[in-house]
Parts: sequence; C-alpha cells; structure tokens
Amino acid sequence: MSILIKNVLLGNKRTHIYIEDNIISETGKILEADRIIDGSGKAALPGFINTHTHAAMTLFRGYADDMPLHEWLEKKIWPVEARLNEEFVYWGTKLACLEMIKSGTVAFNDMYHFQEGAVKAVEECGMRAMMGPVFLDLNNPEKREKEIKRQERFFRLLRNLKSERIKPCLNPHSVYAVSKECLEWCVDFSKENDLPVHIHVSETKKENDEFIKKTGKTPVEFLEEIGLLNGKVIAAHCVWLSHQDIEILSRHDVTIAHCPVSNMKLSVGRVMPYHYMQKLGLNITLGTDGCASNNNLDMFETMKFASLLHKHHVSQTSAPANEIFKMATENGAKALGINAGKIEEGKLADIILIDLNRPDLVPNHNLISNIIYSANSSCVDTVIVDGKILMEGRKVPGEEEILENAKRFAEKLFYEK
Amino acid sequence: MSILIKNVLLGNKRTHIYIEDNIISETGKILEADRIIDGSGKAALPGFINTHTHAAMTLFRGYADDMPLHEWLEKKIWPVEARLNEEFVYWGTKLACLEMIKSGTVAFNDMYHFQEGAVKAVEECGMRAMMGPVFLDLNNPEKREKEIKRQERFFRLLRNLKSERIKPCLNPHSVYAVSKECLEWCVDFSKENDLPVHIHVSETKKENDEFIKKTGKTPVEFLEEIGLLNGKVIAAHCVWLSHQDIEILSRHDVTIAHCPVSNMKLSVGRVMPYHYMQKLGLNITLGTDGCASNNNLDMFETMKFASLLHKHHVSQTSAPANEIFKMATENGAKALGINAGKIEEGKLADIILIDLNRPDLVPNHNLISNIIYSANSSCVDTVIVDGKILMEGRKVPGEEEILENAKRFAEKLFYEK
Repeated sequence: MSILIKNVLLGNKRTHIYIEDNIISETGKILEADRIIDGSGKAALPGFINTHTHAAMTLFRGYADDMPLHEWLEKKIWPVEARLNEEFVYWGTKLACLEMIKSGTVAFNDMYHFQEGAVKAVEECGMRAMMGPVFLDLNNPEKREKEIKRQERFFRLLRNLKSERIKPCLNPHSVYAVSKECLEWCVDFSKENDLPVHIHVSETKKENDEFIKKTGKTPVEFLEEIGLLNGKVIAAHCVWLSHQDIEILSRHDVTIAHCPVSNMKLSVGRVMPYHYMQKLGLNITLGTDGCASNNNLDMFETMKFASLLHKHHVSQTSAPANEIFKMATENGAKALGINAGKIEEGKLADIILIDLNRPDLVPNHNLISNIIYSANSSCVDTVIVDGKILMEGRKVPGEEEILENAKRFAEKLFYEK
Repeated sequence: MSILIKNVLLGNKRTHIYIEDNIISETGKILEADRIIDGSGKAALPGFINTHTHAAMTLFRGYADDMPLHEWLEKKIWPVEARLNEEFVYWGTKLACLEMIKSGTVAFNDMYHFQEGAVKAVEECGMRAMMGPVFLDLNNPEKREKEIKRQERFFRLLRNLKSERIKPCLNPHSVYAVSKECLEWCVDFSKENDLPVHIHVSETKKENDEFIKKTGKTPVEFLEEIGLLNGKVIAAHCVWLSHQDIEILSRHDVTIAHCPVSNMKLSVGRVMPYHYMQKLGLNITLGTDGCASNNNLDMFETMKFASLLHKHHVSQTSAPANEIFKMATENGAKALGINAGKIEEGKLADIILIDLNRPDLVPNHNLISNIIYSANSSCVDTVIVDGKILMEGRKVPGEEEILENAKRFAEKLFYEK
C-alpha cells in the first residue's frame, strides 16, 4: 500500500510526501500511489506523542472535580476503580484512542489496570502505544506475589501478540505505592526482558516529604540506589525534585513526562523545574495524564499549558513554541523508542494533516506559534499512523459505536447497583 | 421571526426553547415556529461574553511570540500598529468575529484603534459588542485635543447608527498612557453621556510600581480620587492590586475583566487576587485579551486556564467549574448591561448549542465540568444572537471570504513595502 500526499505545506514550502507501507520513503516527488491525498490548504506535521496517561480513565471524565485531593481519591476514584474489569477498560481505552486520534496524537504511554482490555482496544484502533499493567503491592507480600504473576502473564501475552505497534513497558506505580522488594523485582525483570519502565516520581509535596522522612532519601536517590534508573525510564510529573535529583536523572538519561495540566488542576503546589532540566539536557516530553485529572487527552492544550506555565513562573521567553513542539513530537518519539517524531525520508509514516483554513490559523505568520498558542485540536483533518489512514476529514470509522458503548459502560460502572 | 429549538438538553432535562424575535419567550412547550432546530444530541447554553479584547489584533496572531515584553512591544507591535487604518481594522475585526462565533462567544468588549472599521464588522456579523476607540494621549496636549475630537466624533457616529447590538464605551487605555487631564475629561464625558468605561488596571508590576513612585498612589486609589470608578466601569487585568485596592473597587461595584491566558503568556509575574475579590463580591468576568498576547479569542480555553491558574496557586477546590461558567456568562452579561447570560423566559435569545456526541463530552457525568475542563470550542454547533442564527452545523455564511481577505490584508500590513 502506498500513499501520496500532494501539495502539502511542510515546514515553509509546499511539497509532496510519499509513503510506502509504513515508511516515509520520499519527499518532494510526485510518484504513482495507491491512494492520493490532496494536501492543498493543509500542513503536514509529525503526530503527537503523549508520554503519560491512564487511557481508560476517560470513563471518569467530569465525574468528580473541584474536590480536595484525598477526598477525591478515596471517596470518588478508588471505589469506582475497584469495580473495573477488562470490558470497562476496553471501552474506556477505545474512547481514549478515538479522542487521541481526533486530536492528532499517534502514540501514547499507558499505565492502567486490566491492560489486556486496553491492548485489544489499541490493536483495533491503529495507534501506537507503550503499555503495561499498573503495578502496586501497597507493601502487602500476598498482593505482591499475585501482582508479579499478573505482570509475567501480561508480558507473555504481549510477546505472543507480536504487535508492531504495541510495546511492552513495566509500570510500577511509584515509590510510595510499591514496596522496595517489588521495585527490585522490576529492576531484574526489566533487565532480563529489556523492558522500559514508566513510573510516577515526586508528583506532590506530601508524597515526597513522607518518603524522605521515612527513608532519609528522595525518591530519585532511592531509585538510583536500587538500580532502576537508565535511558529507558520515563518518570512522570517530577515536580518536587531537588537540583541533585535532576542531576541524577540527567546522569542516567531518564526521560521526563511533564504533565502541566494535571499538575495545575490537582494543585501539586509547585512548577516542575523545567529550566534546570533543560540546562542539563534531559529528554523532556509531554503527557496529558488521565481524564480524572485533566480532563482530556488533548496534546494541543497540554502544549499551550506547558509553555504558559513556565512563562508565568519565569519569563515571556521561557518554553518557546519550537521547544514545546519538539517535546510533543521528537522527544516523545525518542522516549517511546519509535523512529518517528519528524517528517523525513526513512521515518515511520506517523503524520497528521492540519486544515489551515480556519480563523484560529489565520494569518499564518508562524505555523508552529499558531499550533502551540492559538489552534485547538479540531484543526487536525487527517491522521496517518504506521502508513494507515486512521482519520480523514475528521471522520474516524466506527466513531458512533464507540461513543454509544462508552456512554453505556460509564452508566453501568458509575450508576448501576 | 420565531425559532423553536426542540428536544434540547437544558440543565438536567430535555426541553424546548421558543424564541420570538430576539427574546426567549417560552421554555418547555412545543409551539409553532418559522424555524425548527432539532436539539436532540445537543445541549443549550447561554453564549459566552468576552469582556476584554482588542479584536482586530487577530491580524497579529503568531507574528511575534517568545520575546521580552518591551522588545516585543517596541520592535514588533507598535511599528505595525502605526501602519493600521480603518480597512485593516475592519478585516481584523471580521476575522475576530468569525473566530468568536465559531467558539461560542456572543458578545465582547472591544478596545482598539480605528473603531469605525470595527463597528462596521460587528454590525455585519450579528454579534453584540461594547466598543470605543482606545484613548491615549501619552501626556501630549496636542495629541489630547485631537483624541478628544476623535472620541466625540465616534460616539456621535454610534448614536446615529442606533444599533441594537453595539453599545458605546469610553476606552481610556490606562493611567500610565493617559494624562490626568484626559482621564478627567473621561469622567465628565462618561457622566454627561451615561457611558461605561473600560480601562487596563495594574497589569504588570513595572507599570504599577512606576505609577506609585510617581504619584504616591496606586492606580486604583488615583482612579477613585478623580471620580472615575462606578458600577459601569470594567477594569481589565487587575493583577497587581493591594487588598485596599480591591476594597475600593468593591465599594464602587467595578467589574473585573480577568485575562488569565494573556497574564500567563506575558509573564506579568503574579496571579490576580481572585479569592479576595470573590470574598468581597466583586463582579469577576473573563476576557481573552487580544491575539497578540493570547493568541486566540477562545473563551473555552480562557475558562480552563482561569480555573487551573487559581487551583495551581491555591488549591484543588479553587475556582470551581460552576463559578467559572458564571463568570463567562451571567457576570459578563451584567458587565456589558445585556439582559442575557442565562437561558430563561424574558432573556435575550443569545444561545449556543453544543454537540454532545464527541469524545471530549463523553461520558456526560457533569456537563459544566466537561465544558470547562474537557471540551474545546469546536463542540459549538449553533450560535444564535439576538434571535438570529449566526452559525449552524459549524457553518458561518461568508467564512471563506473573511479568511481570504484577512490573509490578504495581513500580508499587506506586515510584508508589503
């Protein structure tokens, strides 16, 4: 299967992009193709990569907002999560994938329960993802044994699936919800199986202070000590880091998943030390977090929030548009180990087409500025992942069925006795 | 002309809204109408009211970002503004109105140059606005005389126009760009002609500190002293206020136009003291500011930024969704003296219909939460202002022509020698 995108704006000029199977094989030439897409009035961009989310939590969207953090978790989120099963997670993830495709996201890093359901949803929708079941034992040895078996089972399943688009990833929740024994198991298991690790790090002051009080170490110091840190680790949030923590993360080439919208909404009380991370050359990427704490999966919005949050705290020149765009594309691709994030010959064909004939993209003095600071995600007209067209003219096949079932399963999960 | 919106979600129930001429005359009954709109799958909300903008600055969108404030103003914004004329402002405002209609805004408060062009654009597009030419003399007596004549001419023009949708408003820029003599003229002229006043107040630390140093008074103390403050004043930004300033504004029943996106992007260095304003019962409303400093006119985005900015600085329970929604609707209507902001019998028919069949509005646990925290403005399907349908199925008549001309005039303004 080959696709030619004709007369599309790429950078500063109109050109043509030729896709063979799942690869961008040529730019600039008009070649014969099975499918021709008219790119006039459109710009081509690499699709966005969301490096921290809990996809199936779309079902929780708007269920409980404006509440104190612990009351929110204990009275609203956890009791419902206890009723989840694979089917709920399947439909929640279907809804998440639909939302992400419609907002120009091509790949995501997912941490949640009943991931077998989520894997099925991602396989069907055509996106890329890095996935693994959230791993937490709450210091309970019995739960630990069960969890380890569940993890092993999941990664066996994923190995057997031989998916081109889904990569396995270990997902220990955090240093406060996972015992040292469990984290050490993760270190060994990830080495044996060459698995990346995705973990929440120093999101709130409370969790950070309590951990330091208990162990005498910061979470990052502790993670270094047990040997968990390396270039395949994605650390989400990283708000309450010391300068020394950042130096440790930099030394081990850890990727940061910055979640500005969630951090602001949950009032984590500080801003992630972005400038010092930048200075040390850390790979900073962007995540939306889950819909219980954002409440959407929209990378356009997350990009604007990221830039403006750091401008607000530092200066008008902080976190400029090009830097933010790179975080959401190239840096995200590096984090997930995907040969994408740029539109170049030899890269994977993960491309979005932007409709330029909209008031929020006119005039077009600077497309990247317009994308970061002005447009909303409905400017995405077409989404191509792995050389397949997932959306065209804003239509995703099967959309109505996904919305109907997501509504039905949310009803069942939250309101049926 | 009568319109019946059938089977639409209003609050928690499906009902019907009947519009006669420009008034909501009945809810709940199916009456015969000239036009029937099928509201199934949609929710009706009052349209949004943007209380601080410089509409024609859409032409500056993305022209200069990520620069230090003064370099930005002096090298990028002012030199181009010096080349403006009525025709540029007309097309810039046409683009602004199109963008606002497409994002569910029904009325706005506009301060800019060559407002004769802007008035023409607003008249044509069908929106409501409160308008007046920005008034600044930079302490130059000659400029002052010319400006006063220009102001008088503009308000005469508006009186003769007898528009139902456009209200006149005096727009002295700020205490630092307008002399005391000019502001005193505004006090008199606004009293004689019963005009509201729209003014920038204490946006940046620099302007505030310099004014205090020069006069020994805060801008708010000074404005009270010269008799400018009353219940028809809209004070934009109000970031660097003391508690005493807020008490003064509260005593005079002044409306606040809060511009969180612009404040963050321009790094004004502090957050508007929202909670103390709330405590004193001030009428707080929301503004986008102009596209040089936002870079859009999207009230959905401004609502989310407003809530999250105060959550970020105070707590997860700050600025809850219902409060923010009221700011963008009821409070805005009060500020502009419009009998709207709610969907009730007897109110003006300024209504938007939201398409509920979208991933970012599913599930619908709480519509207002979904509107503030999840949806983007492309969920607006239909916009009715003053009983006229301005957009339906996201189509605004004449859209292509506006986009083409806005592009053409931006090209001319910025790049032609």
